[in-house]
Amino acid sequence: MSDKGQNRIRPALIVFDFDGVLTDNRVLVLEDGREAVFCNRADGLAFDMLRRAAIPTLILSTETNPVVSVRARKLQVPVLQSVSSKVQTLQSYCENHKIPMLSVMFIGNDINDLEVMKAVGYPVAAADAHPHVKAVARFISRCAGGEGVARDIVENLVRFNEDDD
Amino acid sequence: MSDKGQNRIRPALIVFDFDGVLTDNRVLVLEDGREAVFCNRADGLAFDMLRRAAIPTLILSTETNPVVSVRARKLQVPVLQSVSSKVQTLQSYCENHKIPMLSVMFIGNDINDLEVMKAVGYPVAAADAHPHVKAVARFISRCAGGEGVARDIVENLVRFNEDDD
Amino acid sequence: MSDKGQNRIRPALIVFDFDGVLTDNRVLVLEDGREAVFCNRADGLAFDMLRRAAIPTLILSTETNPVVSVRARKLQVPVLQSVSSKVQTLQSYCENHKIPMLSVMFIGNDINDLEVMKAVGYPVAAADAHPHVKAVARFISRCAGGEGVARDIVENLVRFNEDDD
Amino acid sequence: MSDKGQNRIRPALIVFDFDGVLTDNRVLVLEDGREAVFCNRADGLAFDMLRRAAIPTLILSTETNPVVSVRARKLQVPVLQSVSSKVQTLQSYCENHKIPMLSVMFIGNDINDLEVMKAVGYPVAAADAHPHVKAVARFISRCAGGEGVARDIVENLVRFNEDDD
Repeated sequence: MSDKGQNRIRPALIVFDFDGVLTDNRVLVLEDGREAVFCNRADGLAFDMLRRAAIPTLILSTETNPVVSVRARKLQVPVLQSVSSKVQTLQSYCENHKIPMLSVMFIGNDINDLEVMKAVGYPVAAADAHPHVKAVARFISRCAGGEGVARDIVENLVRFNEDDD
Repeated sequence: MSDKGQNRIRPALIVFDFDGVLTDNRVLVLEDGREAVFCNRADGLAFDMLRRAAIPTLILSTETNPVVSVRARKLQVPVLQSVSSKVQTLQSYCENHKIPMLSVMFIGNDINDLEVMKAVGYPVAAADAHPHVKAVARFISRCAGGEGVARDIVENLVRFNEDDD
Repeated sequence: MSDKGQNRIRPALIVFDFDGVLTDNRVLVLEDGREAVFCNRADGLAFDMLRRAAIPTLILSTETNPVVSVRARKLQVPVLQSVSSKVQTLQSYCENHKIPMLSVMFIGNDINDLEVMKAVGYPVAAADAHPHVKAVARFISRCAGGEGVARDIVENLVRFNEDDD
Repeated sequence: MSDKGQNRIRPALIVFDFDGVLTDNRVLVLEDGREAVFCNRADGLAFDMLRRAAIPTLILSTETNPVVSVRARKLQVPVLQSVSSKVQTLQSYCENHKIPMLSVMFIGNDINDLEVMKAVGYPVAAADAHPHVKAVARFISRCAGGEGVARDIVENLVRFNEDDD
């Protein structure tokens, strides 16, 4: 992505899909059915920066596994998981928070992100996203899922200064 | 694999080897002897698509570790594991379910898959399968084991429309 | 890094950041919130060599997770973790141990290492460190974090013979 | 390695270092100090072949962690771990079992394997072994540690037929 300041965006809300964006889309399956996922410390610093800049964030996932909320808690990011429709859930969330969908950035990687990506103003795809997802994205991260997508977006796409126009 | 619709197949049953197909063939060994394996969320969506298309699936493995059945349960796929002979087990299964072996697709990666791959109509190999396995395969996935082999097959090889000929 | 003996350094203290230096910066997140990280046995041998050469070492991390101290204990290396400011913590540590900051080597990878790297005599970056970190480093390891950075530094940068000048 | 039958070897004993040979030399460190390592199912089939061919095997490691013996038990291979000197331990073992050191194959990867590799008849290095280890090896596997070194050796270096000369 371009890192020229003048093209940067300050979304009203940044929404992250979990698997394949904050993880590499793999899951470690243990004998008792519990799961574990691979996240990245580089993204941890990105969420610190967004919090300091007072830019609201959200993790939105269809996945039911508790690792999603566990990771969200460590990152101090609100989370909505086990949702059946991402686009409907996000529309309700935005109505409740008075956020226009066109001011929302959504970062996704797979075909169950397509509908919500078409509904937001700033759809972003991970570098290794499904071709259909890349096709609807306005921006494509240089990082694959789990390799610092959130960090890349924070460093190269988001505008931190609220008055900078 | 070619993604031209006219070459797609609608098998009566799709059978997946587990290690090296739905995983990257590695195993995480813990101190107490328990094991864990690396699966891929992209394959999860593939099994959703197959279920919606009413195409029967099966996981068939010689491995005794419970991770095989744990993953099968999450994917909602029937599983036969700890089998000594894959080809005999599959032949019995197909007889019981009135499925001709020539209508079966089997996706394998290692030499203990050779016999069963020679016995089915549509043998498929993972991109990083053993050379002997690739040699008997009719199709070779562009994905290595654990990197979305099931997803690649569903998107590029399987015909979903029952009447589409 | 150059492995010519005449350019080698014998620091009074070698300080390692943890995540992204002794690990690959990834973290495995389990369902119950516990974390696990990927270290390298090659680094284990490096710490053995440093101990035999009587070169003091320290692990310094802002991360609060117990994996940091657990790994430090196995490596038999002192550790200071959950620190809010690496540079202040290290300055206090060096004052207490009568070590001049200019004789300290620090190996880091991310922007929260910048301040401390500017304050020590021998700042070193992992091969996959953040560009800002590489920019302030005097030496850059040929190894990425978790792939043997400590080992590479021990084999190619540190002078073991105290009298060798 | 060459796979020409006439150059194959039938050692009296094949000895495997553990970390960096049967694993990728990484270790997953958990919060409570327990460790886990990444092994490969492809190697599992290799040990089955060696057992059927009645070629004795041994795992020899300085590492104290129980994952070594746990993996050895699953592979059904004898194990000597927590040894301080690999060469002395192997010499005692060979004397007790009346095996000449010159008929032994040893597969290693790091500098603590150097002494024992110089003492056996068939020293073998993993593809990603330390340069000093590769320098003393008679054969170098095409596989890196944890990626099927045992399998590669069994398929390309070991002669299975006892009478085949």
